[in-house]
Amino acid sequence: MLGSVMEGDCITTLSTPVMVVDVDVVKRNAERMRGHWTKLGVTLRPHMKTHKTLECGDIMTGGSRRCIVVSTLAEAGFYADHGYDDILYAYSVPFDKVERCALLAERLSLFQVLLDHRDALEQLRKRPLTDGRVWHSEGVELTGVYAHCGNTYGCRGAEQIHAVARETTTLVLQFMEKLKAVGISCKSSIGSTPSCSQPISDMAKLSEVHPGNYVFFDVQQSVIGSCGLEDVAVRVLSRVIGHSPHRNQLLLDCGWSALRLLSMTQEHGRVEPLSGQLDYSRYPLGTLLTIIPYHACATAMMHSVYYVHSGGRLVGKWTPTRGW
Amino acid sequence: MLGSVMEGDCITTLSTPVMVVDVDVVKRNAERMRGHWTKLGVTLRPHMKTHKTLECGDIMTGGSRRCIVVSTLAEAGFYADHGYDDILYAYSVPFDKVERCALLAERLSLFQVLLDHRDALEQLRKRPLTDGRVWHSEGVELTGVYAHCGNTYGCRGAEQIHAVARETTTLVLQFMEKLKAVGISCKSSIGSTPSCSQPISDMAKLSEVHPGNYVFFDVQQSVIGSCGLEDVAVRVLSRVIGHSPHRNQLLLDCGWSALRLLSMTQEHGRVEPLSGQLDYSRYPLGTLLTIIPYHACATAMMHSVYYVHSGGRLVGKWTPTRGW
Repeated sequence: MLGSVMEGDCITTLSTPVMVVDVDVVKRNAERMRGHWTKLGVTLRPHMKTHKTLECGDIMTGGSRRCIVVSTLAEAGFYADHGYDDILYAYSVPFDKVERCALLAERLSLFQVLLDHRDALEQLRKRPLTDGRVWHSEGVELTGVYAHCGNTYGCRGAEQIHAVARETTTLVLQFMEKLKAVGISCKSSIGSTPSCSQPISDMAKLSEVHPGNYVFFDVQQSVIGSCGLEDVAVRVLSRVIGHSPHRNQLLLDCGWSALRLLSMTQEHGRVEPLSGQLDYSRYPLGTLLTIIPYHACATAMMHSVYYVHSGGRLVGKWTPTRGW
Repeated sequence: MLGSVMEGDCITTLSTPVMVVDVDVVKRNAERMRGHWTKLGVTLRPHMKTHKTLECGDIMTGGSRRCIVVSTLAEAGFYADHGYDDILYAYSVPFDKVERCALLAERLSLFQVLLDHRDALEQLRKRPLTDGRVWHSEGVELTGVYAHCGNTYGCRGAEQIHAVARETTTLVLQFMEKLKAVGISCKSSIGSTPSCSQPISDMAKLSEVHPGNYVFFDVQQSVIGSCGLEDVAVRVLSRVIGHSPHRNQLLLDCGWSALRLLSMTQEHGRVEPLSGQLDYSRYPLGTLLTIIPYHACATAMMHSVYYVHSGGRLVGKWTPTRGW
């Protein structure tokens, strides 16, 4: 049972608005990404922030439940509660959450936090770990350098993505050399779905990569050049609830509480044709529309459950964790 | 107990990001709005969509738990489950939800739905109510006309709001006259927080008004002229987690998953001064900042709990309903 719908039911029977996930596309995206990094000999540490579910985490880690990135401590706790370990909290450690970080560090084999200010180092030193554990030698040890090439989101096409990936990789590797020169040897990790979906050979010199969105992809990623539209695993299903001929628009039952798009109110979406007059006879009230999200992370955040299908037939539902 | 914090604790002890509600301001906003409409002899039917909580609904209805508007069937069911009645589902009835609407109509003394297309009328006729109830005589009866003057959101100042309120009121009343001329007599209701916060005398001729946001207000409403900043009841608390001198920015622990603003990533907010160089010594890491939301409805939607305070001391927490 999936609420009032049943396993095997067609997704078109779902009450809208609803977010659906094509599990076959999810698996294919996860395998392709693993393939890239196995080939380059670099550890893939997938980011959980896009979906925040156990089931999708299992697909991304190939069932190992090891070596992940999270964006909130709520995620860290959720995954730890379900047997995950080797968790990287990819967030400048917030001073009001040092205690929660320490508890996770004491509970897991490996829990990593990010620092980007000397004051944060002081905060960690003020909360030594129990059971002979250490934040690391001399109290704290640098495990690695973490960079996110967020500027790939301004790219259009593989060539531009490669240029940013090359620049980021070079900068990180140069920084590693400088650290080495003063006797510090540690790991290096860079991220972003665009650069990791279009890897360049230099990235083989990194220790890890940490993309996340790739498991769902979205319209934004297809515009950037990370994927084709056929790789996008998520859809929002919505129904036509109104005709507005005076505006040449359809009204949908899907507002910004279900999707992130322009021209929306809290619970209404407005659709208009790129050109010409809408033919309303093609879209009677009740017509089901399938919308490909522009940003999957933001869209997923608005749904407390994702309905999962294979070939349009429901196979289960995934429940994300929320909060901070 | 409020999770790990206690009643009476100062809100500054809360883990961030977090949304806090000043219950005294909420009560004052609710009373002022009731005052406007008692004076004009018009029924106030408050909209629940901004907060979606029981406690705030009780404040808005003065404890009567009667005569409300909701934006989703999830809200309708939530309020019905808690003894509310006379609920208006202010949404063109979606064809996949006729059955759920019928069940609510059979269960409550009064449950009203909106129609704006003849096809929707057919849908209701295909699902007659049980127990001698009717959608109304001849199967369906028109209870009233519902309009939302959303164009008040483009106003700046009371004068412009009055102009839109006057135009909307006039149009609705003219329409009522036309209906009357063909023998149909029914109620009239208009909404929007700007027009209802700055009522004009003509609105006394309406049967009902249905504002919602006014109980929280926000920066947008203060810019429009519905309220002063001192009337905004909600804040997002956030802490400084990074200094970015190369960008003249502070980094906050509050992204679009907690607030809707420009220049945010999923879990990071970026703040820069209107002019000049940031003095970082004034904002060490860990500094607590208080942010007034631009749009309270959208901000509230991102929080699964609101912490409620009086004079900065916690008095409880409110849990909203979600979904559709």
